[in-house]
Amino acid sequence: MKILVVNAGSSSVKFNLYESSGEKLLAKGLIERINAPDTRMKYSNHRGQKMEKDITANSSEAAISEACLALMDKKTGVIGNLTEIEGIGHRVVHGGATISGAVRISPAIKQVILDCFSLAPLHNPPNYEGIEACEHLFPNVPMVAAFDTAFHQTMPSSAYTYAIPHDIADKNQIRRYGFHGTSHQFVSVAAAGILGRDLDTLKLITAHLGNGCSITAVNCGKVADTSMGLTPLEGLVMGTRCGDIDPAVVIFLRRLGYSLEEVDRMLNKESGLRGLAGSNDMRDILKAIANGSTAAKLALDVFTHRLVKYIGAYAAVLNGFDALIFTAGVGENVPVVRAMVCAQLTYLGVHLDPALNKANALTISQKGAMPAVLVIPTKEELMIARETLRILTT
Amino acid sequence: MKILVVNAGSSSVKFNLYESSGEKLLAKGLIERINAPDTRMKYSNHRGQKMEKDITANSSEAAISEACLALMDKKTGVIGNLTEIEGIGHRVVHGGATISGAVRISPAIKQVILDCFSLAPLHNPPNYEGIEACEHLFPNVPMVAAFDTAFHQTMPSSAYTYAIPHDIADKNQIRRYGFHGTSHQFVSVAAAGILGRDLDTLKLITAHLGNGCSITAVNCGKVADTSMGLTPLEGLVMGTRCGDIDPAVVIFLRRLGYSLEEVDRMLNKESGLRGLAGSNDMRDILKAIANGSTAAKLALDVFTHRLVKYIGAYAAVLNGFDALIFTAGVGENVPVVRAMVCAQLTYLGVHLDPALNKANALTISQKGAMPAVLVIPTKEELMIARETLRILTT
Repeated sequence: MKILVVNAGSSSVKFNLYESSGEKLLAKGLIERINAPDTRMKYSNHRGQKMEKDITANSSEAAISEACLALMDKKTGVIGNLTEIEGIGHRVVHGGATISGAVRISPAIKQVILDCFSLAPLHNPPNYEGIEACEHLFPNVPMVAAFDTAFHQTMPSSAYTYAIPHDIADKNQIRRYGFHGTSHQFVSVAAAGILGRDLDTLKLITAHLGNGCSITAVNCGKVADTSMGLTPLEGLVMGTRCGDIDPAVVIFLRRLGYSLEEVDRMLNKESGLRGLAGSNDMRDILKAIANGSTAAKLALDVFTHRLVKYIGAYAAVLNGFDALIFTAGVGENVPVVRAMVCAQLTYLGVHLDPALNKANALTISQKGAMPAVLVIPTKEELMIARETLRILTT
Repeated sequence: MKILVVNAGSSSVKFNLYESSGEKLLAKGLIERINAPDTRMKYSNHRGQKMEKDITANSSEAAISEACLALMDKKTGVIGNLTEIEGIGHRVVHGGATISGAVRISPAIKQVILDCFSLAPLHNPPNYEGIEACEHLFPNVPMVAAFDTAFHQTMPSSAYTYAIPHDIADKNQIRRYGFHGTSHQFVSVAAAGILGRDLDTLKLITAHLGNGCSITAVNCGKVADTSMGLTPLEGLVMGTRCGDIDPAVVIFLRRLGYSLEEVDRMLNKESGLRGLAGSNDMRDILKAIANGSTAAKLALDVFTHRLVKYIGAYAAVLNGFDALIFTAGVGENVPVVRAMVCAQLTYLGVHLDPALNKANALTISQKGAMPAVLVIPTKEELMIARETLRILTT
């Protein structure tokens, strides 16, 4: 059974085609800068063939059409025609308080996604657009939505409740939801495999450090706490998001004369690493540090300080832990961040092996040291394919 | 040398008169509900005499005048006339980024306090009013301001920098300042004495849990991080303040139709324990729990969960610590909060002695257990008197 996984973002579409019986990735691609003059597709298949080209696509639907053409291409394609695709899994960011797992897409589920637009204004609208695009392109193919919030629905009320008036919170569903749930779940399951233990006996801290960053305390397979909140703005320092700040900063900025929309954009798109040092890419930050930039050094220091605080906080929430897992772009590929963070955690028995860390090895803690420190490449798309298969075959 | 310490709040004035040569408290009093029909003064002196009465006071100046009358009262007074007061120390909440210690009050210092009104709108205006009242009542007495923010000015930039655009932050002085500095400093110094160690060799975590709550990591006498931020709104759950929330909650509430002023009041005055369970007083919360209130139980759980997270976070910031100190109303008097929190910290070697904890003893950790856990009554007024004496005599 071939399953297409679609992750439709605001200006990009990622697609992955799996032969799900064996979890084999047949092909994957990324279309970037949709509706810009320089839209570009990157594509590769399981035979090692790669393709990269400029395309024209002014919508998610046009981009997904281009993806389909690539999948059927005589030279680099992996399917003969689109009817071979028997299921489509969509990444959706926000499912509110009602969605606690992947679900088959129906008009009611689409309404849930619509209802959550205000909670994830950067993500749910393009996710929804991607679903509608696939409904047009694949009218008879069953589809599943896998929500970033779903894994976190196991969180206890002491962790998801904000200390604001309970009537206002209840009426408007204001609470911590958490995001990147698919990734946190995937690496938790993978960590249990690596450690040779059952997930339901483990206390884990999973740090997803990409352009968006979040961290989760996982207690015996259930989320004990997570850093993102009502929206993906809360928590760690990210590429362009501020993460935790005094909520009074928002009020203060409004009183300085910034409009609500300006504050929203500032905190979501112009803050984080970009706000501190001009780039949302940690590689640029590290280069700038090498060139003597004090702003870039401060950005790295703030980034790691805040990460250290969350790891310490979740160590307490879990009353100790078995393993710390780094994943996503920065988590998987930036040894200096992991080294800086773990240097603060020797009080817990965390001890990195510098050579293994530098090599981005699977286990980077010293042999026998506990808690273990792991680097696990996240595969959200595989997790979504697994969930899609599960929903469509049971 | 007799020193009067004045803490002028929005509807109350606290006053303490010290004979500073021996740090002896001669008398203290509290005037509550200023400018209300039921203004009331509580007063006691070092001879054990107590007095409580309804008074009329529609301003800080009127309240301080009443305080002076009490101090000179033939029966319960402790001074013959006001000229015996040779120095006045004022508690001021916010001193911005320029004030790093107690200072003699001058027109320039008054301007700094005025400039910080927007940063601490609930506190700096009444603090300022209290200073002007004393200028009228004691025209020739030198005065000192002790700022809640001053101790925290030793914080490193990685801890005080928010990940927002650096130009906007710099221009508008948006950063973490921290508050309750006088209290955190006082209990840090006291803890060093109790532990028989120099403060500059100790790693301490000081939890000030009153109606306002904050927690500080103190590394060798310097602040490594603290929970309150630009304003006293950030951090722990408090009596009426929300503490940490997704900053997007503010934006979300505005879009629901709440005005900026309504959101400000909601988060500062109607949130925290009050927002979750109807009362800002932990004693009421505990009574309600005993009566089966699930809302009160959730309020206590959220309060302690958030406190546990900060202690864990600061353990990591300090890479381990020597002692955890509880202070202020809840910190000094509510064993169940300390017990719930420390039960999560056994991974660090924290072990309470239940009997000592129940007795609110000075050391409540088990004999020999490290980190130590201490309960130290805070004496911010004594710290302000010490600082006032130091400034006026050197």
